Amino acid sequence: MDAAPDTVNADTDQTVARMARSAREGQRILSQMSGEARARALKSAAAAVREQKAQILAANARDVEAAGARALADALVDRLALSPARIDGLADAIETIAGQPDPLSQKLGTHIRPNGLEIEKRPVPLGVIGIIYESRPNVTTDAAALAFFAGNGVVLRAGSDSLESAVALHAAFRAGLTHEGAPAQAVQLIKTTDRAVVGALLRAQGLIDLIIPRGGRSLVARVQNEARVPVLAHLEGVCHLYLDRDAELEMAKDVIINAKLRRPGICGALECLLIDRKILKIATPILEALAEKGAQLIADEAVRGIFPSAARANEDDWGREYLSPKLAVRVVDGIDGALDYLRSYSSGHTEGILTENAATADRFLAEVDSAIVMVNTSTQFADGGEFGMGAEIGIATGRMHARGPVGARELTSYKYVVKGQGQIRP
Amino acid sequence: MDAAPDTVNADTDQTVARMARSAREGQRILSQMSGEARARALKSAAAAVREQKAQILAANARDVEAAGARALADALVDRLALSPARIDGLADAIETIAGQPDPLSQKLGTHIRPNGLEIEKRPVPLGVIGIIYESRPNVTTDAAALAFFAGNGVVLRAGSDSLESAVALHAAFRAGLTHEGAPAQAVQLIKTTDRAVVGALLRAQGLIDLIIPRGGRSLVARVQNEARVPVLAHLEGVCHLYLDRDAELEMAKDVIINAKLRRPGICGALECLLIDRKILKIATPILEALAEKGAQLIADEAVRGIFPSAARANEDDWGREYLSPKLAVRVVDGIDGALDYLRSYSSGHTEGILTENAATADRFLAEVDSAIVMVNTSTQFADGGEFGMGAEIGIATGRMHARGPVGARELTSYKYVVKGQGQIRP
Repeated sequence: MDAAPDTVNADTDQTVARMARSAREGQRILSQMSGEARARALKSAAAAVREQKAQILAANARDVEAAGARALADALVDRLALSPARIDGLADAIETIAGQPDPLSQKLGTHIRPNGLEIEKRPVPLGVIGIIYESRPNVTTDAAALAFFAGNGVVLRAGSDSLESAVALHAAFRAGLTHEGAPAQAVQLIKTTDRAVVGALLRAQGLIDLIIPRGGRSLVARVQNEARVPVLAHLEGVCHLYLDRDAELEMAKDVIINAKLRRPGICGALECLLIDRKILKIATPILEALAEKGAQLIADEAVRGIFPSAARANEDDWGREYLSPKLAVRVVDGIDGALDYLRSYSSGHTEGILTENAATADRFLAEVDSAIVMVNTSTQFADGGEFGMGAEIGIATGRMHARGPVGARELTSYKYVVKGQGQIRP
Repeated sequence: MDAAPDTVNADTDQTVARMARSAREGQRILSQMSGEARARALKSAAAAVREQKAQILAANARDVEAAGARALADALVDRLALSPARIDGLADAIETIAGQPDPLSQKLGTHIRPNGLEIEKRPVPLGVIGIIYESRPNVTTDAAALAFFAGNGVVLRAGSDSLESAVALHAAFRAGLTHEGAPAQAVQLIKTTDRAVVGALLRAQGLIDLIIPRGGRSLVARVQNEARVPVLAHLEGVCHLYLDRDAELEMAKDVIINAKLRRPGICGALECLLIDRKILKIATPILEALAEKGAQLIADEAVRGIFPSAARANEDDWGREYLSPKLAVRVVDGIDGALDYLRSYSSGHTEGILTENAATADRFLAEVDSAIVMVNTSTQFADGGEFGMGAEIGIATGRMHARGPVGARELTSYKYVVKGQGQIRP
């Protein structure tokens, strides 16, 4: 198929509709399976991924070869390439998800009304989820496992760079489900690289209940602009730490270095350090330590006054996600200045304060309007695994439905179950 | 302004942006107020509505007169018209909302990770909510009070038929808030009838966090098609009851009559009765009682075989919301037939079963995928007040964020508050 991107294409619409309906049929069966049965099916899927390692590696090698031929950036090829150990890691992740508490057995509360009606709020799957992602092969198994464990069907749309790997992983995953008698059709993978498929997914009202985009800025922007289906989006992670006048500076130094440099490329990495003007001078050793460990500081004039080797910041360095060793540094006038700054520049992902002053900390935690707010710890903890969720499909930066790390539990909805004995409404 | 409906209009975009920003400023203050202070402000708003009864009645009289001049249907004028008692009812509703537990003080759970990090899930307001509604004046105060109590800003867009009433109610409401020192600017009302405003609200990404449409099919369809902002929509309430072979027929009769005829015009009213083929003949007295009480039966051929005075159903009578004394009646083959039928025709609002068989009831409650599922009671209980929520802004029939009755608690989001003592991620 040679349809131009973004055009409406009846063929792709039909393909998506067929797959969504098939996923829905599987999902209906899945939604009535016990938590034990869903966990057993996932463990079987993990075992099948391990068993089919050779096929998965062969498929991945074709993707990597094609990427080399297209001269993709090394970082991209590195994300794409699987090894036996990485495949074991994918299987481990599926098993970790299966080992979590059943999201469909959560108790959401029951109450009895004065008229005797019993009203129970009961978790149910969201339905059929469309997942649109780029080159990371792990999304195929992570997303399928999280969605499946919460009783959902999925329609996966892998990036063209990783399609062969996705096909092999999907085949193994489904074989494992089938081996346990679970409805493999709940897990669908779109096997065409036609970009019109993305548009078809985004328009599939009534067929797809939710779209989760996992990719860069341009994918998320396209999804947000075109989607007629609800979207759970992860926008940017422009994480800030505010170094308050009452911080314990040695501890703060370690936290800031970890937040910036442990893995600068993840969404929880620190992008901007705000320093209370009152302690600017005594904070110099922190900047020195950062630079020494490899951070590249980009600073306002006040910070450059005490640390002249920092590069001069432009207006577009504020609120910017570098995903690299670059770190913006800026002076603010105490907690009020920090709160003001964050109202303008926070991306709503993760913000932290470093202080020993409980009142200042409480104010920061209450007033900063981000999905995750922290005191005296590293923004790199902004992660579903670190939160104890087993795994995550991303960090939601919107405000509707789920906010922060999205695990299996966040991929559920609920219904009200009302039990009466003949009550009629007066 | 004479802009044609649906066109992009820079003036209305700017008006909406200005109001949304003003609501956001008020909302920031509101979000830091205690539950007691929010409740006190609402009680003051209720008192102001009672005090300004004369002004509100005068404004409403102008709306009613204009409606008469435009020859609106009597039902519409009846919805629109206020009386002193109705205005007291609006004030009572605000007080009821203020008397509910504070939605921002819910405990959503705290846990300590093995590394000592304390992770708390804390309720927060959704932000700024756009509410687009039609002729019912009560929506102005109900929606403002629910949103305000949950710490949200609102931008209200009343229907042109009720605009004078909305302006008067809004003025009273805000005066009450101001009297208690609460940020009245959190509650904005758009005072133009220009239909382009609706489009501007629907496009206001980043300014409006959520749109709630309260109106008929055409408004909801427009919102769903045009919105670039998340929507919490109430679609149709095509409520079904399934009369099972193991029902207690006398009780079932009372429940069915109540579900259809108590108030046929509400979204929880019964629209279709499914009868188990096995008990069709002995169900005849129920149909007779319905007809005698004023229901107009529209039935399939099997039902007409035992009750020939029922009108013949067309295909478009199935899955239809009459909001009138009409009732579709159809035979199904037991619980399997009922579940099959509902998979195709349910609108996802409220479905119930009438049976004394616990296993059949459990299966119905588990497998019917509606926001509210019931056993042995009237679908007319599908209502936030009846669920103990104090009041509702509607019944959400989507699956994301909130499902079923939407009260103040459903107008919240959450954030994660992480407290450390210098933890860094390994």
